[in-house]
Amino acid sequence: MPLFFKISLFFFFVSSSYPLDNNHPLESLTLFELTQVTNIVKNSYFPLNVTFHYVGLNEPNKQLVLSWLSSTHHPALPREAIVITRIDQKTHEIIVDLSSVSILSDKIYNGHGYPMLTLQEQTAADELPLSYPPFISSIKKRRLKLKEVACQGYPVGWYGEKKKSTNRMVKVICYYLDGTINLYMRPIEGITIIVLLDQMTIASYIDRLIVPVPKANGTDYMGSKRRRSSHESNSIKIVQPDGPSFTLDNGNTVRWGDWKFHVAYDMRAGIIISLASMFDADKREFRSVMYRGFVSEVFVPYIDLTEEWYYRTYFDAGEYGFGLCAVELEASKDCPENAKFIDGYFISQDGTPGKMPNVICIFERYAGDIMWRHTELAIPGKVIRKVRPEVSLVVRMVSTVGNYDYITDYEFKQSGTIKVTVSKPRS
Amino acid sequence: MPLFFKISLFFFFVSSSYPLDNNHPLESLTLFELTQVTNIVKNSYFPLNVTFHYVGLNEPNKQLVLSWLSSTHHPALPREAIVITRIDQKTHEIIVDLSSVSILSDKIYNGHGYPMLTLQEQTAADELPLSYPPFISSIKKRRLKLKEVACQGYPVGWYGEKKKSTNRMVKVICYYLDGTINLYMRPIEGITIIVLLDQMTIASYIDRLIVPVPKANGTDYMGSKRRRSSHESNSIKIVQPDGPSFTLDNGNTVRWGDWKFHVAYDMRAGIIISLASMFDADKREFRSVMYRGFVSEVFVPYIDLTEEWYYRTYFDAGEYGFGLCAVELEASKDCPENAKFIDGYFISQDGTPGKMPNVICIFERYAGDIMWRHTELAIPGKVIRKVRPEVSLVVRMVSTVGNYDYITDYEFKQSGTIKVTVSKPRS
Repeated sequence: MPLFFKISLFFFFVSSSYPLDNNHPLESLTLFELTQVTNIVKNSYFPLNVTFHYVGLNEPNKQLVLSWLSSTHHPALPREAIVITRIDQKTHEIIVDLSSVSILSDKIYNGHGYPMLTLQEQTAADELPLSYPPFISSIKKRRLKLKEVACQGYPVGWYGEKKKSTNRMVKVICYYLDGTINLYMRPIEGITIIVLLDQMTIASYIDRLIVPVPKANGTDYMGSKRRRSSHESNSIKIVQPDGPSFTLDNGNTVRWGDWKFHVAYDMRAGIIISLASMFDADKREFRSVMYRGFVSEVFVPYIDLTEEWYYRTYFDAGEYGFGLCAVELEASKDCPENAKFIDGYFISQDGTPGKMPNVICIFERYAGDIMWRHTELAIPGKVIRKVRPEVSLVVRMVSTVGNYDYITDYEFKQSGTIKVTVSKPRS
Repeated sequence: MPLFFKISLFFFFVSSSYPLDNNHPLESLTLFELTQVTNIVKNSYFPLNVTFHYVGLNEPNKQLVLSWLSSTHHPALPREAIVITRIDQKTHEIIVDLSSVSILSDKIYNGHGYPMLTLQEQTAADELPLSYPPFISSIKKRRLKLKEVACQGYPVGWYGEKKKSTNRMVKVICYYLDGTINLYMRPIEGITIIVLLDQMTIASYIDRLIVPVPKANGTDYMGSKRRRSSHESNSIKIVQPDGPSFTLDNGNTVRWGDWKFHVAYDMRAGIIISLASMFDADKREFRSVMYRGFVSEVFVPYIDLTEEWYYRTYFDAGEYGFGLCAVELEASKDCPENAKFIDGYFISQDGTPGKMPNVICIFERYAGDIMWRHTELAIPGKVIRKVRPEVSLVVRMVSTVGNYDYITDYEFKQSGTIKVTVSKPRS
């Protein structure tokens, strides 16, 4: 299965083996549940081919969750999944109930927009041009080597067309390696390739103009090929000799200082923070700060009117999936030494669940900053001095969408605020 | 000398003993030089009383400094001091040449504005109301205890008056302790006390109205009296097993990564960063980023029109001195464990130089953030991954002006930018 080659490097596919071992109602679907869900849907449509674009928890309504939260014995709430599939070139939104092992609802979606791209269909689309004679001829015409070409499919956008198209499509853009790994620095401009995803065929091919490919020299970003700094830096680490101050239970509820919240992985949204609340020591109770928070969308419009660029107006969360594009986080690099990690579970196109190890990290952040301080000299005969360092708690995910690496941080501050940042470091 | 009581707790007055042991032209005046300067001025005006409000380096002009910088043997440049004094109720701006041990120029300043307040005159003004019968009577009328009152003098602002006043004055505001150290939470409102600083007398006293003093309960900011968090935190430290990566020579030139700059202490500006430059590995030379940078002013207007508040429009750097109000920095609290410290030297009102130990700290900052990263999946058969943590270098001073604690950070980033922040943590 060459289509799976790229992702199999990253994700260790695991077999479903154990049931839900906790009963937090907002916990992401487990491996066991994901397998159940896709089996229910596949069995229901057998022998039709079902492609899975999104499977996630269908959360119980807020009132149910809040009453669960305030009860002392925390009774298990119903577990449901929302499934977005393509079946017979139609988009289905299916709700699956896990306790009754049945489909609660199944609607065909006819509105604008399409399901998220799967990793498998992206890989398949990327490979199409490489064996497509007109493209091979275009590459030859440019005096480039076909084996140094790498392609990527991108959504086509929407420009007010009234007629709804049932065709899911991407435009495939190709880049040139040949001496660099930094392919985005060497676009092969002037070519527009439209791929129909359900058919996985090239529907339209235009080679409009030849633009010289920029040189490879100086584009490499790996350390060994970059010019060296005049001084090398000594290592710097954040250490907690007594361990982290936060706890993470097996239902992914985090407690830190006065904070309590739930963290979950979602294929589309990435991190979902729920039930974030802070302990009020005066009232001796938790006060709700945020019921549910996640990145709803990241819009990336290039605002370039040329034929090969006008459509580059991506929804990087909704089209690619911030969770699906998340990378395995590396200790001491993506997250500091004192981080703890959480795994995520996603569904591949054929319904097989996959594990994303260390997809979320949680750590106490200390940058040497001061949260609060005062030196009081106005009281005769006294010098009063109080300094409180700024320590916060960060929940992080990194999502790589094409050449963009998004760092999503939910930073919980002792002041009671949550600072959410989606940042793109230089890359 | 009761006037000196407050500051003698903080500053260890040292005798001048050693001459300049380096020849960086932008180095702050040394103890030896400061003593020379004040002796030259005092001798010149003997037997008149000279009060010193500011003494700092009179920098050589930029062309001289740049030619010094580009020369290989770094010849010592002339050392000059600028002195701002009050003599016979007039403000003098005096330039002293240290090599010829002489006064180069001496001008009487007649424009708007006044020299910085000295610590000694602030303390003296603060104590005046406590033995002033009308004030004692005001306190009695409010049924407050005089021994629980603490006062502070504040500049009076300027509201378009045409006539220039040669009188330096402050308005003294009093606060109530009695059960709290957080005096600013308990202002004794309704009283306006004008103190003439040169005469050190109360020139005007108005008790306009009685406002109840807020209660002390719940105002204490010291840890032992605050409500406890529901969880205590484990310690968190920034460590560099091989030591810091920056060097600091005895002329206070800092080198870190591709950066090189000079850091100096100034009574008014606090930190002065000079000759900040970055090594350009392609050109094999340093490129200038900033010739000289410092906080020119911090304006704090309260925008409250009532009689006792309208004048509160402070210049916290120029009236109080960001350097003069700087505090001794505490390792692991004001600055992280990996910080190095620099001392500063100031002049007290009578010309005695004083040492401010650990008044500037320098440390490498690492918050677990990512400076640069990319995971490349678009090259068939390869997964490329590169992550560079964000480490920067911070030069910090903390200046406590009344109830405000300003944290001034110059953050040097590997990207070549300098991020300057003057922040006031909650206090």
